[in-house]
Amino acid sequence: MFIRVLGAAAGGGFPQWNCNHPNSRLARAKNPNAKPRTQSSLAVSLDKKKWFIFNASPDLRQQLWQNPELMPVKSDPLRYSPIMGVFLTNADVDHTAGLINLRESQAFNLYATQRVIDVINKNSIFNVLNPKFVKKIPVKLDTYLELLNSDSSKSGIKVKAFAVPGKVALWLEDVNKGPNFGSVEEDTIALEVYNQETGSSFYYIPACANVPDWLKNKIDNADLVFFDGTLWKDDEMIEQKVGIKTGKRMGHISMSGAEGSLKAFEELQIKRKIFIHINTTNPALIDNSEERKKLDKAGWEVAYDTMEIAI
Amino acid sequence: MFIRVLGAAAGGGFPQWNCNHPNSRLARAKNPNAKPRTQSSLAVSLDKKKWFIFNASPDLRQQLWQNPELMPVKSDPLRYSPIMGVFLTNADVDHTAGLINLRESQAFNLYATQRVIDVINKNSIFNVLNPKFVKKIPVKLDTYLELLNSDSSKSGIKVKAFAVPGKVALWLEDVNKGPNFGSVEEDTIALEVYNQETGSSFYYIPACANVPDWLKNKIDNADLVFFDGTLWKDDEMIEQKVGIKTGKRMGHISMSGAEGSLKAFEELQIKRKIFIHINTTNPALIDNSEERKKLDKAGWEVAYDTMEIAI
Repeated sequence: MFIRVLGAAAGGGFPQWNCNHPNSRLARAKNPNAKPRTQSSLAVSLDKKKWFIFNASPDLRQQLWQNPELMPVKSDPLRYSPIMGVFLTNADVDHTAGLINLRESQAFNLYATQRVIDVINKNSIFNVLNPKFVKKIPVKLDTYLELLNSDSSKSGIKVKAFAVPGKVALWLEDVNKGPNFGSVEEDTIALEVYNQETGSSFYYIPACANVPDWLKNKIDNADLVFFDGTLWKDDEMIEQKVGIKTGKRMGHISMSGAEGSLKAFEELQIKRKIFIHINTTNPALIDNSEERKKLDKAGWEVAYDTMEIAI
Repeated sequence: MFIRVLGAAAGGGFPQWNCNHPNSRLARAKNPNAKPRTQSSLAVSLDKKKWFIFNASPDLRQQLWQNPELMPVKSDPLRYSPIMGVFLTNADVDHTAGLINLRESQAFNLYATQRVIDVINKNSIFNVLNPKFVKKIPVKLDTYLELLNSDSSKSGIKVKAFAVPGKVALWLEDVNKGPNFGSVEEDTIALEVYNQETGSSFYYIPACANVPDWLKNKIDNADLVFFDGTLWKDDEMIEQKVGIKTGKRMGHISMSGAEGSLKAFEELQIKRKIFIHINTTNPALIDNSEERKKLDKAGWEVAYDTMEIAI
């Protein structure tokens, strides 16, 4: 199974359009230690010919350009895409807006929870996905689902979605619905992606507010985990004067600290653990930072665009 | 007045994600005669410090990266954008979806007809534009409107919008509303953009179904016109087996033919006339094509990303 990181940054990408934080400035200056990153997305394939995209970022068109394997080759028909399906883990703009790029009359399967499908159906802009060609398939939690190719044949890839601690997408928050803004369990899901033929699998957890014991037990001994790397410190956006929200308020755990992911993963045996969905303010984005050294020491990698892993 | 072409291609860009037409293949092979192009958008500035964007393409984030002047510089505040406002000429996905990139809490002014504003208000995904910061300003046809900077000061740029022959955006078509799919006059507008200080102006007409005499009279003797360059031939998408629609069906005039734009502009005296919004199938996209030679001979230019014009 081949996993390609299409985008490694959190919402807005790195650098963000209106961000003048030192990290963003380094990236704009093309400093080699501050590689620019597009917004959070993975592509998965068993054969590098048929691909499934996990989360459709607003940068999807640019991401396809950066990953030619996801575009047609000469022997393909005049209209063709190697993209067989798209799987959404939530309704975040940085995970859904990219669907708009996958118009107009091209068959593929769209997997998401019913709640996310409802949101997409309510936004008429997604009518650019012609329902004659795009099948929307509701995902049930805690159940293996075999992904289907665009011609409805079996892909050999199974996915199990499960709820993790989190929050509803920012643009769907309802302040009248109490401190969790109307979030329900299936608003933030993680995925186990499983290759039927070889039995290999990995976890994709791009948003997670904390790591309870059941989650530790679940992912312990995994070959590969992609995990929420939004922030280094819970209050870094406030401290650095670029925002007013903590990580907790946004539904994202931070890397450092007693309640952070480094600590939570400390005792786990995971072959490769990779941070993804990294915010512009996170000092660990910068290759030669002290914070990156701490990640290195703890056995973590930091995802970058076009990173490829075979398991 | 400085005009920067952010994107020169029609919807889907060049190459399109699922297009395997010879033009798209040339672009993917990085042939120097087939420059890739992002989706249709202009940026305008009087001083190269404050910019207005005309149409927000889905490629906006990539376009900002290609045009560093539209991102903050070191002396700017921690959160800042030189983008003072966005002006939409219709509700096409390739002209509106880019708004999603301009989140979250950054002030700018959004100009569009009331009909387009209504569509945006109905699609909750655009809630990422925080109404505390983003003012939506309805545009009246045939009236000069001075664009305001994000702090509400006057920009010195005036815009007059006027209806041109066209059609409602594809995703808003209503087949129950007769042969024009429920289109009304203000669904396709063109703009006259005017520099108050110098009196210089240009026309931006990215979609237009035909060129009636009144339009010829209006733009005759202009310094600069950007004009709908979607197709070379009305039926080229059908002939080339990549689509089922004519240009007329899509609300776009073609370049060639007795009813085409080359013919329509033949007698007009316009200093610079530039095709923009060019579809992947248009042979004039290719620098060394016979069709491009015909455009050259007729005094037309073909827009490309980052092209800059000062008038």
